[in-house]
Amino acid sequence: MSMHARASAPASIGNVGVGFDVLGQAFDAARDEVTAHRESQQGVRLGEVSGLMSKLPEDPMRNTALRAAQAVLQAVKAPFGVRLDVKKGVPISAGMGGSAASAVAAAAAVNALLDKPFSTAELLPFALEGERASADPPPWDNVMASLLGGLVIAAQLDPAIVKPMPAPQGVTAILFHPDAKTETQAARDVLQPDAPLQTAVEHARRLGAFTLGCATSDLELIRAGLDDVLIEPQRAFLLPEMRDVKAAALEAGALGCSFSGSGPSIFAWAADFDAEAVETAMARAFDRAGRKAKAYRASLNSTGVRLEPAEEPEACA
Amino acid sequence: MSMHARASAPASIGNVGVGFDVLGQAFDAARDEVTAHRESQQGVRLGEVSGLMSKLPEDPMRNTALRAAQAVLQAVKAPFGVRLDVKKGVPISAGMGGSAASAVAAAAAVNALLDKPFSTAELLPFALEGERASADPPPWDNVMASLLGGLVIAAQLDPAIVKPMPAPQGVTAILFHPDAKTETQAARDVLQPDAPLQTAVEHARRLGAFTLGCATSDLELIRAGLDDVLIEPQRAFLLPEMRDVKAAALEAGALGCSFSGSGPSIFAWAADFDAEAVETAMARAFDRAGRKAKAYRASLNSTGVRLEPAEEPEACA
Repeated sequence: MSMHARASAPASIGNVGVGFDVLGQAFDAARDEVTAHRESQQGVRLGEVSGLMSKLPEDPMRNTALRAAQAVLQAVKAPFGVRLDVKKGVPISAGMGGSAASAVAAAAAVNALLDKPFSTAELLPFALEGERASADPPPWDNVMASLLGGLVIAAQLDPAIVKPMPAPQGVTAILFHPDAKTETQAARDVLQPDAPLQTAVEHARRLGAFTLGCATSDLELIRAGLDDVLIEPQRAFLLPEMRDVKAAALEAGALGCSFSGSGPSIFAWAADFDAEAVETAMARAFDRAGRKAKAYRASLNSTGVRLEPAEEPEACA
Repeated sequence: MSMHARASAPASIGNVGVGFDVLGQAFDAARDEVTAHRESQQGVRLGEVSGLMSKLPEDPMRNTALRAAQAVLQAVKAPFGVRLDVKKGVPISAGMGGSAASAVAAAAAVNALLDKPFSTAELLPFALEGERASADPPPWDNVMASLLGGLVIAAQLDPAIVKPMPAPQGVTAILFHPDAKTETQAARDVLQPDAPLQTAVEHARRLGAFTLGCATSDLELIRAGLDDVLIEPQRAFLLPEMRDVKAAALEAGALGCSFSGSGPSIFAWAADFDAEAVETAMARAFDRAGRKAKAYRASLNSTGVRLEPAEEPEACA
């Protein structure tokens, strides 16, 4: 019977530009780690918080890790509780799936304490329940990508069909996290309730082109598709330099460039041989705007959640 | 120097249910044939009309075959004209791409009279110009599918990127042409100018799922995706028995069922081993509605336009 289990889950790029609420991409340039300690008392509570932050909400309804852990324990009517240590490697309110990474890592860590653990894919509803602490209803894109790794499509919501999408060879994801914050809920609230039919058709066209491009490693199709005509125009004002950064990325050869999730982070896809030039061009555009921004890079085939070797428990806590 | 050339082009399923204005599918259960006769006088004129009909408009602006032929001749500043014999195998105003098949066959037949013919793919703009006689702006779906064969995506309009989409193995297309007519333009006019954002997202989700399903021969994804939530609900009233026919098809195991183009024809995709049952179920539903309907079946890998052996010219016309 395990007393401690540790799991890590990657950052992720929600929407992947063209797939609002449909696509997500694991982005293994940063990971959250959650260690679950079994406790005899039922319920969930927060232990040590470290890494990028030293405080997180202690209320399970407002903490994605705690809420995910609670969902796992309640599903199996576990006769024990857990204390979670959270080591944040993924920034929050950044558009990098920070809340989802914590939820996913927590679900996996607690799962590893069960006598009959769920499969990784079966953890999706629990991780989603955790993400609900951040946005309700919880978007799937970050959660499914952080859980499963790589590029993932939510093909159907009910009943859920979530599938890996083949990622093209020789393409890198670049992400800049600017020194600015957006709240997922606020970024959703700016969206118009309706879209022109023509925009809806063009949006679907791009998702079809992108999907076929990924499945057949056709960079021309990916370039045609990786373009958000539905959501990005409504959110561009949230980060004034968005337009310049995107133009710089495309000019330098990027296959596409958009907000990661609801921003403010901006990601681009580029052929490996263009990645350096694209990153440099984006960095210069942020410089020109006088905005600090941190650059990350990761493979399209980023690893999803994984169990980590449990650290030695402290002698007597 | 050829004096006569003959080409045939298949019927087609516009939209393929989930891909309004984006997808088309050749449907080789019926073909139009156009024979182009070189004439010393410039211009285009209609010769013999045969097959399903004996009359067609003689004004090139209102006849898709003549208008496509004219576009080809004008593009190369041909020093000659043509007379077109049209043998209609594809019904018109049926949602089977009848106007597109004539345009495509005409473009290919005239092309074969040129000293330096265009490639098949290069004929797209001329065939589209022909289709403009039927609807303006001309939808691409039927034209590109009838031209190229198989399942085709219009990945980008300007500049045009039209690509074949891999078709899943072991799946058949079934189509019923009911004894009713819809005009493409009228069917477009009923559409609301806006769509709820949620519908736009769900529409794109289905196109993404369908595309990935086709590319990976994953019938679960195709079933999840082959479902038109954007357009079909707005047009269902055009054919009162639509709902029943669709329900019967799905009940019998179809992967999906929707209008072909703007209807009134209804198509379904079914695994080969379900095709007989699906066709029977749909036929019964039409029977119950008291509507005559003709059934067709064709492979997803239907052949597109092709040159046919030129018939012996009449002795002295």
